[in-house]
Order: sequence, then structure tokens, then C-alpha cells
Amino acid sequence: MMRDYLAELFAKIATEELSFVEAAELFQKEYRNSETLGFAVPDFSRAERCGFPEVIFGHGKTMEQICAIAKSLREKTGGVVLATRLAPEAAAALMRDFPDAKQNELARTVTIGEAPALPCAKPVLVISAGTSDLPVAEEAGETLLALGCLTEKIYDVGVAGLHRLLRHEAKLREAVAIVVVAGMEGALPSVVGGLVGCPVIAVPTSVGYGASFGGVAALLGMLNTCAAGVTVVNIDNGFGAASAAARIVRTAAN
Amino acid sequence: MMRDYLAELFAKIATEELSFVEAAELFQKEYRNSETLGFAVPDFSRAERCGFPEVIFGHGKTMEQICAIAKSLREKTGGVVLATRLAPEAAAALMRDFPDAKQNELARTVTIGEAPALPCAKPVLVISAGTSDLPVAEEAGETLLALGCLTEKIYDVGVAGLHRLLRHEAKLREAVAIVVVAGMEGALPSVVGGLVGCPVIAVPTSVGYGASFGGVAALLGMLNTCAAGVTVVNIDNGFGAASAAARIVRTAAN
Amino acid sequence: MMRDYLAELFAKIATEELSFVEAAELFQKEYRNSETLGFAVPDFSRAERCGFPEVIFGHGKTMEQICAIAKSLREKTGGVVLATRLAPEAAAALMRDFPDAKQNELARTVTIGEAPALPCAKPVLVISAGTSDLPVAEEAGETLLALGCLTEKIYDVGVAGLHRLLRHEAKLREAVAIVVVAGMEGALPSVVGGLVGCPVIAVPTSVGYGASFGGVAALLGMLNTCAAGVTVVNIDNGFGAASAAARIVRTAAN
Amino acid sequence: MMRDYLAELFAKIATEELSFVEAAELFQKEYRNSETLGFAVPDFSRAERCGFPEVIFGHGKTMEQICAIAKSLREKTGGVVLATRLAPEAAAALMRDFPDAKQNELARTVTIGEAPALPCAKPVLVISAGTSDLPVAEEAGETLLALGCLTEKIYDVGVAGLHRLLRHEAKLREAVAIVVVAGMEGALPSVVGGLVGCPVIAVPTSVGYGASFGGVAALLGMLNTCAAGVTVVNIDNGFGAASAAARIVRTAAN
Amino acid sequence: MMRDYLAELFAKIATEELSFVEAAELFQKEYRNSETLGFAVPDFSRAERCGFPEVIFGHGKTMEQICAIAKSLREKTGGVVLATRLAPEAAAALMRDFPDAKQNELARTVTIGEAPALPCAKPVLVISAGTSDLPVAEEAGETLLALGCLTEKIYDVGVAGLHRLLRHEAKLREAVAIVVVAGMEGALPSVVGGLVGCPVIAVPTSVGYGASFGGVAALLGMLNTCAAGVTVVNIDNGFGAASAAARIVRTAAN
Amino acid sequence: MMRDYLAELFAKIATEELSFVEAAELFQKEYRNSETLGFAVPDFSRAERCGFPEVIFGHGKTMEQICAIAKSLREKTGGVVLATRLAPEAAAALMRDFPDAKQNELARTVTIGEAPALPCAKPVLVISAGTSDLPVAEEAGETLLALGCLTEKIYDVGVAGLHRLLRHEAKLREAVAIVVVAGMEGALPSVVGGLVGCPVIAVPTSVGYGASFGGVAALLGMLNTCAAGVTVVNIDNGFGAASAAARIVRTAAN
Amino acid sequence: MMRDYLAELFAKIATEELSFVEAAELFQKEYRNSETLGFAVPDFSRAERCGFPEVIFGHGKTMEQICAIAKSLREKTGGVVLATRLAPEAAAALMRDFPDAKQNELARTVTIGEAPALPCAKPVLVISAGTSDLPVAEEAGETLLALGCLTEKIYDVGVAGLHRLLRHEAKLREAVAIVVVAGMEGALPSVVGGLVGCPVIAVPTSVGYGASFGGVAALLGMLNTCAAGVTVVNIDNGFGAASAAARIVRTAAN
Amino acid sequence: MMRDYLAELFAKIATEELSFVEAAELFQKEYRNSETLGFAVPDFSRAERCGFPEVIFGHGKTMEQICAIAKSLREKTGGVVLATRLAPEAAAALMRDFPDAKQNELARTVTIGEAPALPCAKPVLVISAGTSDLPVAEEAGETLLALGCLTEKIYDVGVAGLHRLLRHEAKLREAVAIVVVAGMEGALPSVVGGLVGCPVIAVPTSVGYGASFGGVAALLGMLNTCAAGVTVVNIDNGFGAASAAARIVRTAAN
Repeated sequence: MMRDYLAELFAKIATEELSFVEAAELFQKEYRNSETLGFAVPDFSRAERCGFPEVIFGHGKTMEQICAIAKSLREKTGGVVLATRLAPEAAAALMRDFPDAKQNELARTVTIGEAPALPCAKPVLVISAGTSDLPVAEEAGETLLALGCLTEKIYDVGVAGLHRLLRHEAKLREAVAIVVVAGMEGALPSVVGGLVGCPVIAVPTSVGYGASFGGVAALLGMLNTCAAGVTVVNIDNGFGAASAAARIVRTAAN
Repeated sequence: MMRDYLAELFAKIATEELSFVEAAELFQKEYRNSETLGFAVPDFSRAERCGFPEVIFGHGKTMEQICAIAKSLREKTGGVVLATRLAPEAAAALMRDFPDAKQNELARTVTIGEAPALPCAKPVLVISAGTSDLPVAEEAGETLLALGCLTEKIYDVGVAGLHRLLRHEAKLREAVAIVVVAGMEGALPSVVGGLVGCPVIAVPTSVGYGASFGGVAALLGMLNTCAAGVTVVNIDNGFGAASAAARIVRTAAN
Repeated sequence: MMRDYLAELFAKIATEELSFVEAAELFQKEYRNSETLGFAVPDFSRAERCGFPEVIFGHGKTMEQICAIAKSLREKTGGVVLATRLAPEAAAALMRDFPDAKQNELARTVTIGEAPALPCAKPVLVISAGTSDLPVAEEAGETLLALGCLTEKIYDVGVAGLHRLLRHEAKLREAVAIVVVAGMEGALPSVVGGLVGCPVIAVPTSVGYGASFGGVAALLGMLNTCAAGVTVVNIDNGFGAASAAARIVRTAAN
Repeated sequence: MMRDYLAELFAKIATEELSFVEAAELFQKEYRNSETLGFAVPDFSRAERCGFPEVIFGHGKTMEQICAIAKSLREKTGGVVLATRLAPEAAAALMRDFPDAKQNELARTVTIGEAPALPCAKPVLVISAGTSDLPVAEEAGETLLALGCLTEKIYDVGVAGLHRLLRHEAKLREAVAIVVVAGMEGALPSVVGGLVGCPVIAVPTSVGYGASFGGVAALLGMLNTCAAGVTVVNIDNGFGAASAAARIVRTAAN
Repeated sequence: MMRDYLAELFAKIATEELSFVEAAELFQKEYRNSETLGFAVPDFSRAERCGFPEVIFGHGKTMEQICAIAKSLREKTGGVVLATRLAPEAAAALMRDFPDAKQNELARTVTIGEAPALPCAKPVLVISAGTSDLPVAEEAGETLLALGCLTEKIYDVGVAGLHRLLRHEAKLREAVAIVVVAGMEGALPSVVGGLVGCPVIAVPTSVGYGASFGGVAALLGMLNTCAAGVTVVNIDNGFGAASAAARIVRTAAN
Repeated sequence: MMRDYLAELFAKIATEELSFVEAAELFQKEYRNSETLGFAVPDFSRAERCGFPEVIFGHGKTMEQICAIAKSLREKTGGVVLATRLAPEAAAALMRDFPDAKQNELARTVTIGEAPALPCAKPVLVISAGTSDLPVAEEAGETLLALGCLTEKIYDVGVAGLHRLLRHEAKLREAVAIVVVAGMEGALPSVVGGLVGCPVIAVPTSVGYGASFGGVAALLGMLNTCAAGVTVVNIDNGFGAASAAARIVRTAAN
Repeated sequence: MMRDYLAELFAKIATEELSFVEAAELFQKEYRNSETLGFAVPDFSRAERCGFPEVIFGHGKTMEQICAIAKSLREKTGGVVLATRLAPEAAAALMRDFPDAKQNELARTVTIGEAPALPCAKPVLVISAGTSDLPVAEEAGETLLALGCLTEKIYDVGVAGLHRLLRHEAKLREAVAIVVVAGMEGALPSVVGGLVGCPVIAVPTSVGYGASFGGVAALLGMLNTCAAGVTVVNIDNGFGAASAAARIVRTAAN
Repeated sequence: MMRDYLAELFAKIATEELSFVEAAELFQKEYRNSETLGFAVPDFSRAERCGFPEVIFGHGKTMEQICAIAKSLREKTGGVVLATRLAPEAAAALMRDFPDAKQNELARTVTIGEAPALPCAKPVLVISAGTSDLPVAEEAGETLLALGCLTEKIYDVGVAGLHRLLRHEAKLREAVAIVVVAGMEGALPSVVGGLVGCPVIAVPTSVGYGASFGGVAALLGMLNTCAAGVTVVNIDNGFGAASAAARIVRTAAN
């Protein structure tokens, strides 16, 4: 996009819409659209490029780094700031520093500010196979909220008791996209994918033991689904699945 | 859906819209919506449930089985029939049996009949990283065609020469969804995902050698993408990625 | 069991039921219950110990070795002889050498003689998820036949079209045990296991590609089933699943 | 089974056994046979479908969730409630809340109430290869008890000292089914499977180090057993093996 | 050893046992103790260092290369020459070029010349679990022969029929070392290791299918043996196991 | 061996060396040669069968269990008792309960009593590649001591500084067997195996990080050694390597 | 670099060095620096960016595609064209189409034209551990030649006979960089890396069997080298190692 | 090198430059160039052989061992001493014992003394993809400093926001070598490798979760890079990458 930007400046100078000085200033401003904090370079133009702002992945960052990045993003973009995979202390620090922050303990997220709702009447549906999958499902839910998506949830409807899922068939059919969160053998997305025509995003979770290998069994099951058109994200990646759903909502809303 | 169907019959009998005999006949018909060929049970109601008909996965089926299933689907649904992963002889048999069949040798597909175009003005974009990824990219392309999706293609634009991709930035921005096909390290979807806001579906290919482990390196790279909201399908699964894109097109078209 | 046998001889000599000479002869006979063919030691007493005779695993043995072992087993035990995983030439050789042999090409088996039916009125049910799983399902079927078990089959009822399975619910409930054969994500045993109370034996198949890793995805899915009490055998091991089912039938028949 | 239920209502209305109002009430009741606790949907009809009630898998659930599910199951089904993989605090909480609960610390289980004995005179035998396999073997034992199965145990009889096992050959022959628990190379089920004709269920344990890879070596050994008809469950899954054995007992008892 | 050699020359010059010219010539000769054939550098002094000559690993070498190396080794060392993993044409070429060569087709070996017997009265015992393991067991046998070791063989005595092994207990006890060859679950070395006190070398074979992963299951089983002091070589490495046994025989013979 | 024993009794009764009563008593005694502690069945006859007594693997056993087994073995066999993989508290408990116990903290072992020296003049040599491999090397050393083997040690002589190893060439040549302990790439056994003719037992350690995968890299390196006749034990299994060396020493000493 | 180029055009227009028309023409030319052949987009500016031209990876491309890309590269860049991993027919086609082409059958390469020598007096040294590693070593050699690097080779000097390598120590010390090619346990780079101070690039090969897993053992060994500063490329990637060495030569030559 | 040294002594005695006594003394001194601390043998001649001194890998060594090795190296070589992977207490102990030590907490290193700058005007560039990769990038930086290399750093410029990297293109082009540190999908080295002609060393980090498998995804991505000539070191091995870069700097500086 740097190319486009320069081509545009180039054209505007050619048509005398801009002087060289003005072009230079604009060029500088473009260079300021990410800021160096020393340890991090927040990407302020991501919302413009990708439709949603940079999100803070809390794992492996110090409390101080997280708060500094949040402050930088909040000030420069003015938009909602979402932080995921937060240790309790990091979440507490954000709650203290930002009066309008909201925390979801189960999801391990903090959201600062509120996103404008995307203009799409149909909800994204988040389904979980078991109670132990809730942290991942809730991370997806919080991310969808932060990205302005209407969201509904159906929890604990795994394939060993099919009637629990089938009773919600109407809701399944109304969704713009479905995020299906499952551990163990990860069979739920195949069943859901065979029942509906909307996009289905499968999230394997690390729930299980022994030969689940931390979610690998569920991941492989989902990649090998016999239901055509189910796509998959990384193990426990509720955030990624919600981001993919939001890309679909934006596309559908346009 | 059997539940819904029975509940509906139940209601209609209650309101005397249907006699018991009529209900029984309708019930029978519902039971005929998949047919047993002995070795296979084609699923005629899939298009109604999922928005697209059952597709014949040619691998591991005999030439005779493939032709029989194609005939059954073609007769009962009247819609387009797509067969993928065809051995040359199986493709030849289909071409011989169905006068309106079209073959794509590179993609290893045969398509019988033509799909009505989905009402979506924006194309699905299929991008490949290298020349060796073409069979998978072409399978995606043929599937999109069979599902009625407008499609465009950009091939051989891997990350070792970024300018080859960046020159197509305008096209990237116009797509309703992008299917990115890449082998080796599978880095292209991350770069594409960081440039656009629409859904990006990554297809790892088995192109590579040594520690590519038949596409595992690319698969893992795509699952671990740093670009939020990129989703992944199985290795070499061009069909699955196209099906996922078609789910998005249908959602966007509604 | 050698111990028991010797203890018994020991006791009989003590009570003078047997002379030393007689005991020595019996001891010799026990030693003849496996015979050395040089390259192989057929286990003639297996039927007595385990309830079914030794089966010839054809893979990795020459045509001559297979025929010699079959001859030895047939002569010494007088019972049914089953050979599995046969190359076409080995199957042809057995068909030529044994007039009462029957071949199943799809299953790659040859059965010589006929087994007496086990006294159990309820059938073992063999279910397959897809058409490509048939060779494994048929190997299970032939093995059950050779072991004297009443058998029924339901093929191509994978989870992407649940109604195909649910229509057979009555049959599911009548089985003494169910062998469920599935490749790809291997989700079918979980669904079946949640519907019935009888023993369910899951057989992963190598059907699939890419991240199915030759059946590993299905295997892991089945090992991680959320349906309590589903057990698993090796990939493509239709023979093993049928043997396990026959153990159940014998136990139930006693 | 929803289908069967509706078909039955449908038939009863047709024969005027039921009025529409009564049918509607029964339909409602069916819908109440699982209850939403928000975080969980206990499956009250599982005992009817599968022969045994839902069991609470304690891992990854909070103390409060476990107690609430136990209370719900106990009240609605009236039957025995088993909770496995309990942290010490969760076990203590159940012991405090339920006066008739019994705890097995080694097995990490709590059982509330008592199961009616299944009408089968032969015991299920639980065998362990080593002392370190006891927690898994005990989990199997407690599950069998909770499912009403007669149970016997033989511990620490690994293959490096065969005489320790062979001395119990009589007991081996009397069992209706045998659960064999082993870590390290997991060879014990092969030896047991070669000695008896009843069903043998192998449980690999995570006992071992280095190239045991948390039980994978034992798991692979068991899946590749040369003893025909041995089936396998997930690593450390004593509960699953016992559930499979109980399915066999019920089948044999019918 | 170069150091020792130079130190020795150094000492002999010092004591005037050698002139400088003589030392230089000896030094040159040492440098000639391996010869460059361009594509290969046969190691003539290996027998002196390690007790046995270099062996030609035929896999991945051309027929011409194998014959040239064999000729070079035969001429320079005068000892027995063993070639393993030979394609049929390479074996034929050696048989043609060397009148005193002997071929073992099953073992895929050719031996040229005869080794002097090592002075050890007790044999090395080679045991195989199944008929399909014979090629590996025979490779071990031919190697032992070429290294001058007294050898005995017991084949097809796998753990599913323990009595077949136990009958040979006396032979087991007489061996100086035992090579145990087994595929599938690889349990035989554990049982043997628990019966005898001599060194036991386990050779996993690639015999098996599905989750045997080309011998990995057997390899892991053997590495995790519960029988103390069993050691393991690479999958299908009959040559390596025999070499290890020969190291033991030489040590015992000294 | 039970068979031999009974056969022997049988023969002695036949020749009237034994009365029936005496035979029965001897038979009973044989049955007492392992004792059930409830949680464990110590194997008292192992020394007789395998040449060394059962060793207590401390991992996964409670302090109480370890002390009880030690007491049982010490009383019944009278020989040396070795316990490995001891938690500090378990080691302390043994030191408290047995006045003649000796602890090696680095090796995590306790030895009770002293073994008679095996009649072999040549030492077993234990070599380690790095300082971090010492716990495993020391476990090997303590085991050799407990088994009565003369032992020498050379530590920290990895292949990145070859001269450190080569200086010890004389010692390498004097050993009856060499245990080589190495982590990371595990190359040291290949180099040692190429320098000597005696048996070389390689022990991979879990020393390393990243792609060492807890010792897998070293394990694979050792299994693929280009030095003929090097054998391998499990990762970190100093005990197993020493046991294998002791089997060699006993064979050489006979 | 597009950015730099545009910035430069921008600056030249500003200083009136270029007219808009001229700038537009230059911009167009830049866009022509890769050419679309439909199936491929040769990257003509790679030599300028990275110091060496694009190389044709022959695997997975048709004979026609390879010849067309070679023609396009040869015409547009005028420089040397290297094609690797060629099937015999593809190599023959190139030899037929290009009179100045040279083929290396062992390396599976064809080189068209000749590269100017890089100004560096010291050679790159290519070392192989065994005869079977030659195809990979020769691919490295041909690539170095095509990139203008002075090259020397030492073959078959694996670690099981250290004196074969040590005799070349002088040559090792003279190299500007060393490419070390080894299969099996891959220990040679560690030994070389401990002897010299220049850059050492390790190439694992797929030479080996069983637990070499197609070169994985060698790859892991090299990644875990105890010799500081050894770097690694993909399995069998002689081309990549040579490219890395050429990058070093160019850096050293500047 | 021992060989060279002895050959040299040998020559000097021959030419009477040295007496035998003097030669013996020199020989002794050579033998002192590594010193045995009991648990460790510091390699004093490594700087002479490889161009840089031995570095203390702190992981798995006690505080006392680390200080003793540091003292030994510092005294005998007089050069800079670097210790990596230090626990906080070990770092504190070194800081206390050596007044001129400097600690980098993030990098977990301590450096004692200062290295003379290598005569190379161009810097080594260290690039990281994300903030979480900093510990590894800093370890590389500290190592480069300790080895006397001019160093520059660019952090947090991952591929999801390409403009952050492209803005530094000038710096990329000035480097003598580039160390690229990245976790997750590890795509950054491919992009950098396609932009520059200097050596690029890729360091995968364990940053990521789920299917990153502790850095395996990044490692595989880097090994399969489509950018020719990128080499790779072990996961998290900043030290190794810096050592490789220093080998390049020394080669370039000569």
C-alpha cells in the first residue's frame, strides 16, 4: 500500500493538487502510522487495511508492555482496544489504567471502549461441545463483541448426545457464520457443517488427555472433516476464529 | 431436519391439511431422498441443507462406482455434478458417459452440467505461490465454477519476490474472499491476510521436499499465521477451500 | 497352560490314572500341537485357548508359505482356515489348492471350509462411513463369517448426512456388538456410541489425504471419543475388530 | 431417537391413544430430558439410550460446576453418580455435599449412591503390569463398581517376570472380560490376549519416561498387538475401558 | 590412533630404532591405509581398530561402485568381505566377479571369503517373532557368520503363543548373546530379557501396518522394555545387531 | 521355567528321589518366590534367572511403597538392593530405615548392601559428552557398582573438541564395554564406536532444548549411527545401559 | 524496493531530471522486470536484489514449463541459468534446446552459460560423509559453479573413521566456507565445526533407513550440534547450502 | 590438530630446532590446554581453532560449576567470557564474583571482560518479528557483542504489517549478515531473504501456542523457505545464530 500511497502523491504533484512540501509532510505522516515503543511497533493503519485494529496478544508480554501498547493504540486510533491471553495481574493493571475497560475472567480478555455495530442483522453463532471448552468459546465471544458483531451462543452440545444440538436447528440456520469450538475428537464441526450452508469455522481446543496431544487429535479431525467447506484455525484460537467470522460479517455487510 | 419434517407433518395432520395416507406418502418420499446403490448412498437433499450438492470424491472409488453415482445424482437432483481427484481413466469414462461433461486435466476434475451464477458481483480470488501449486489452485477454481461463483486467479506470486504480489493490490481489495494456495513454508496467506479485510482461506500444498513432510510445514505455518482471521483447510484441499469460499459467497449474496 | 497340563499329568500319575509311558506320550502330543514348517510354527492349540484358530496374515509371506501354512492348519485342526491381506496371486493359489475355498476380492481374503455358527441370535453390525472404507469393512465381514458370527452391514452413512444413519436406529439397537469403520475425521463411532448401549469397536481407515496421515487423524479421533466405552483397533484392521466382536459374541453366547 | 419418539406420538394420535394436548405435553417433557445449567447440559436420557448414566469428567471443571452437575444428575435420574479425575478439593466438596458419597483417593473418583448389580455371574478382571499403573487400574475398578459389574483385580504382573501372571491362569479363564492396564512397552495385553478367549481391553498408561512419550509407546504397542481381537482405549483412560467392559457385561447379561 | 602412531615413531627415532627415512616411509604407509576410489574411501584399518572389517552397505550405491569397493577391500585386507542390502542385480554382479562369493537371497547379502571362527564355544542365538521378520533375522545370521560367530536360530515364536518360545528355554540359557527380531508391538525382547541373564539385543522390524508406522511401534516398545539391560538397534538393522553381538563375542573370547 | 521345574519334580518322583509330599512342598516354595505386598509383587527369583536382582524404580511410587519393597527384597534375597529415580524424601527415608545404605544425590540413587565383585579384570568405562549429562552417567555408575562391575569414568569429552577424547584412547581400548552418555546431537557414540572393538552402549540424554525434543534428537542420532554394532537404550536410562553392560561382564566372566 | 524506486522517480521529477512521461516509461519498465508466462512469473530482478538469478526448481514442473522458463530467463537476464531436480527427460530437453548447456547426471542439474567468477581467492569446500550422499554434494557443487564460486570437494570421510577427515585438516582451514553433507546420524558437521573457524553449513541427507525417517535424524542432529555457529538447511537441499555459501563469498568478496 | 602439532615437533627434532626435552615439555603444555575440573573440561584452545572461546551454557549446571568454569576460562585464556541461559541466581553469582561482568536480564546472559572489535565496518543486523521474540534476539545481540561484532537491531517488524519492515530496506542492504528471529509461522526470514543478497540466518522461536508445537512450526517454515540460501539454527538459539554470524564476519574481515 506504500506503493499506492506514493503513486497517489506522485499523481497529485503532477496535477498540482499538492506541493512538494505538502507531499513530504503527508509522506512523513504515513511513516508515523506505526510508532516505535522500543519493544513494539503498534500498527495504527491495520483497521484501515484489514477492517479491524491490532489486538494485544498478552502472552509473553510484561504488564508494563501491555499497558503501554494499549495506551498507544487507544490514543492514536481512538477505537476499541482488545487484549487477550492476559495473566490476572495484567488484566488488573488494564482495569486500573482504563476506566472504561471491561474484563471477562473466563475468556482472559479485557476490552477498552466499545465497537460500533457492523450493519449485519444475522448473528455469528458460537457453539461449544463441552463445558471445558468455555474459555476458548468465550474468547471468541469477546472478540466478536470487540469487532462489532452480533453474537449468540450455544454451549455443551457435543456429539455423544445429538438431540442436544438438533433442538437448536433453527438457530443454526439463522446464523451468518458459525464458530464451533470442540476438544477431544473434534467431531462437532463435521456434524454442524452437514446441517447448514453458512460458513463454519472450527476451533480445536486442548481439552482432552493422553492421545489428544494437547488438541492435535481435534485439529486433525477438523482438517479431515467430511463436511465440505469447514475451515480451521489453530488450537485454542478463539480469537482467530472470531476474527475470521468478523471478516465474513464485513464482507456480508458490504 | 427429520425432526422438523415430522413436526410439520404432525402439525398438518392436526390441522387436517393432510390425511394420514398423504402424510405416510410424503414420509416415504423423504426416505427416498437418499438412494442406496449398494456401495454408496448419494445424499440428494444436501443442496437444500447446505446450499450445494454432494460432490464425488474420485480417489479410492472404481470407474464404475463413480459413473453410477454421477448418474444417480444427475438424475435425481438435476443440478451440476462435480467429480474431483479423478484418475485419467475415470475422467475418460465420465467424458464418454456424459455429453455435457467438461474436464480439467491439471485439476483432475470433471464437471457435468452448469451451475446457476450466485448473485454476488465481487469475485473469489484464487492466488498461488508457485507454479507447482497449480493443480490444487485449479481444483479450487473448478469447484468455484461448479458452485456458481465468479472467480479470478493470480498465480506464481510467492513471498521471495514480494513485488510480484504487491502489483495486484487493487485486485486483492476487490475480492469477496481469497483462497491462497502455497507449499513449502506457506507464508503467502500471512502476507495476504495483512493486506486485506475480506475472508482469507489458506490451502497448504504438498509441494516441497525433506522437512516439508508432504505439506505439514505449510499447514503448520498457516495455522500459526500472525495475520488475524486467516482460516485453513487440509493439505492439497482446493475443493474444501472453494467450498468454504462458496459458503461465504452465499452468505454475502443473501 | 503348559503348567496346568503338566500339573494334571503329575496328578494323574500320582493317582495312578496314567502310567509314566502314557504320560510321556501325552506330553509328546502336547509338543506336537504346534508344528515347525521351518519358516513358521502354526499354533494348533489357539482355538482351544482363545476360541478361534490361527489366521494367516498374508502380507509379507510368499505364495508358497501361505499355501503350506494353510495346508498344515487345515490338516491338523480340521477347522475353518482364513487368510487375509492376500495379493491376487496368493489368493489364486489358495483357490487352486483348496476346492472348498471362497474368495472375497474387495476384502482380499480367502476362506477355506465353513465355521459352525456361534449360538447367539443377535447379529454383529458392521457400519462404514464411506464407500472407500469398504475393503476394511468387508475384511471385518469375512472374518466374522469365518468365526461363525451372524453379521449385518450398513454402508456409506457418514456424519455429514446424519439422516442416513438415523434411519437405521432400530438395527443399531438390535446388535450384540457394532464394528464402525471410518476414515477421514473418524467421527462416526462417537455418534454411534452415543446412540446405543452395546459394545462399539471403532476401526480407523487410511482413507483420506494430507493431514489424515494415513489414518492417524481417524485413529486419534476414535481414541479421544466423547462416547464412553468405545474401543479402538489399529488402522485398517478389519480383521482385529471382527476378532474382538467374536470374543464378545462367544462371551454373550456362553 | 427424536424421530422414533415423534413417530410414536404421531402413531398414537392416529390411533387416538393420545390427544394433541397430551402429545404436546409429552413432547415438552422429552425436551426437558436434558437441562441447561448455563455452563452444562446434563444428558438425563443417556442411561436409557446407552445403558449407563452420564459421568462427570472432573478435569477442567470448577468445584462449583461439578457439584451442581452432580446435584442435577442425582435429582433427575435418581441413579448412581460417578465423578472422575477429581482434584482433591473437588472430591472434598462432593464428600461434603453428598452424605452417601464414597471417595477413592488413588483413583481420584467419588461415587454417590449405589448401582444395582448387573445379572452376570462372571467378573470383569482388572490386571495391571506395575505398581505405578494403579491409579488407572483403580479408576477402572471404581467405574465398574458404579456400573454394577462384579470385579476382580490382579496387580503388578508385568511380562519381565511371566510366572507372576501365569499363576493366575485360572482366574484369567473365568472372566467375562479383562481390562489390562500397562505402561512402558505395553506388552501385557498381547500376552493375556494369547491366553484367553474373552474380550480383552487394553489401557496404555503414561507410566514411563524418555521415549515412552507419555504413554504413546504403550499405546502403539497395544494397537499393533499380535494377539487377535485385543481392543484399545486412550492413554490412562481407565474409565473408558471399564465402560467398554460394562457394555460387554450388559450384552452378555441380556 | 594417529597420535599414538606418531608418538611411537617419535619414540623410535629418539631411541634410534628408526631412521628418519624409515619413519617417513612408515608414515606414508599409514596414510595409505585407506584408499580413495574417488567416490569412496575404504577404511582398511577398521578391522585392526574395531575388530571387524568395513562392510559394504549396498543401498544407494551403483553395481559398479559396490564391485569396485569389494575388490579394493578384498585385495588390501585379504579378509572376508560382506555386502548387505543388495539389489538383485548388484548381488548377481558380485557373484559373477568373485568365484568364492555366497549369496543369501532372503537376507539380501553376499559374502566373499570365509571368516576365521572366534574362539567362543557358546553360540549367538537369533530369535524371530514371526515369519515376516525373516529377512532381517537372516541378515543378522549372515553377518554373524561373516564375523566368525557360532550361530543358532529360533524362528516364529511370538508372544501370542508363549509355549512356542518356552519350549526352547534351554537354548535360551546357553547363548553368549541373543538377537531378538520382532515387528508389530515388539514385545518379544521383554519376555526374553526376563528369562535370561546374557546380553539381549532387540531389532525392531518394519513388519506391521497402520499405527506400526514402519517399525516405530516396535522400536518404542523395545526402548521402553521393562526387562533391565535390553539394548536396541535401528529398525530392520539385522546387520547392526549382529555386529553388536560380535563385539560381545570378541570381548567374551578375550 | 515353571515348566522345567515341574518337569524336574515329575522326573524326581518318577525316579523316587522325591516323595509326593516333598514335591508338593517344593512346589509351594517355588510359588512363594514372589511375594504379594498388595500394591507390588517383588520378583525374588530374578537374580537366579537374569543374574541380577529386581531394582526399585522409585518414580511414581510413594515413600512407603519404596521402603516396603526394599525391606521385602532385602529380607528375602539377602543381596544388594538398588533404588533409582528417588525423590529426595524417598532417598532420606531409605537412608533412615537402612543403616548400611549409601546415597548418590546427583544420580538420585540409594544402594543398600554391597555386591560381590564379578570376576572380570577389565573395567566398564562410562563416558559423558558434557557436564549436564552427569546425572545419567552417575546413575549408570551406581548401577554398575551395585551389580559388582569394576567401573571407570571419563566426563565432558564431547565431539566439538575431539582432542579431549583422543587423549584417553588407551583407556578406551582397555574396557570390557563402554557406556557413552550424550545429549544434544548424540554424536559421541559414533566416534567412540569407530575407535574401539568392544561393545558400546549409547545412552541419549534429555540435555538440550528446542529441536532436541527432550532427547529425541540424540536418540535418533544414536539409532542411526554409522559405527557398526553400537546399541542404544531409552533416553536418560543410565540404569538400563549399566544393566546391559553387566550382562556383558557376566558373559565375559563366565 | 518498489518504494525506493518510486521515491527516486518522485525525487527526479522534483529536480526536473525526469519528465512525467519518462518517469511513466521507467515505471512501466520496472513492471516488466518480471514476465508472466501464464503458469509462472520469472523474477528477472532477483540477481540485482539478492546477487544471484532465479533458479529453476525442476520438481513438479513439466518439461515444457522448464524449457519455457529457461528461455525467458536466458533472454531477459543474459546470465547463467541453473535448473535443479530435473527428471532425465527434462534434462534431455534442456540439453537439446540450449547448445551451451552442461548436464550433471548425478546432481540432476543442467547449467546454461557460465557465471563470472566471484573475486574471492579462497574456495568453498564441499565435504560428504558417505558415498550415498554424493547426489546432494554434487548438487551443491554445480550450484556453486553456477554462482561463480571457487569450489573443492572431499568425499566419504564420515566420523566412524576419523583419520580420513583429519588428514585433510589443512584444506579445512583454507576454506572461506564449508558445506558438510551427511545422512544417518549427521554427526560430521559437529566435528568439522569444532575444527575450523569459518562458516559451516550443514546439509542433512535422506540417506539411511528405519529411524532415520528420511533424513529427520540427521536434520535434528545438525540443529542440536554442540559446535557453536553451525547452520542448517533443509534435507537434501544441496542447492540451498550452496546458495548460502555464495552469499558468504559475495559478502567476503566485497 | 594433535597430529599437526606432533608432526611439527617431529620435524623440529629432525632439524634439531628442538631437543627431546624441549619437545616433551611442549607436548606437556599442549596437554594442559584443556583442564579437568572434575565435572568439566574447559577447552582453552577453542579460540585458536574456531576463532572464538568456549562459551558457558548455563542451563543444567549449578551456580558453583558455572563460576568455577568462568574462573578457569578467564584465567587461562585471558579473553572475554560469555555465559548464557543463566538462572537469576547464577547470574547474580557471576556478577558478585567478577567485578567487570555485565548482565542482560532479558537475554539471560553475563559477559565478563570485553572483546576486541573485529575489523569489519559493516554491522550484523538482528531483526525480530514480534515483541515476544526479544529474549532470543537479545541473546544474539549479547553474543555478537562478546565476539567483537558491530551490531544493529530492528524489532517487531512481522509480516502481517509489511510496511514496518520495508521502511528499513536501506539498513537491510548495508548488513554484512542478518539474523532474523521469528516465532509463530516464521515467515519473516523468507521475506528478508528475498530482499537482500547477504547471508541470512533464521532463528525460530518457541513463541506461539497450539500447533506451533514450541517453535516447530517456525522451524519447519524456515527450513522450507522459498528464499534461496537462508540457513537455520535450533529453536530459540540466539547464541548459535550469532556465532554463525561471527564466523561470517571473521571470514569477511580476513
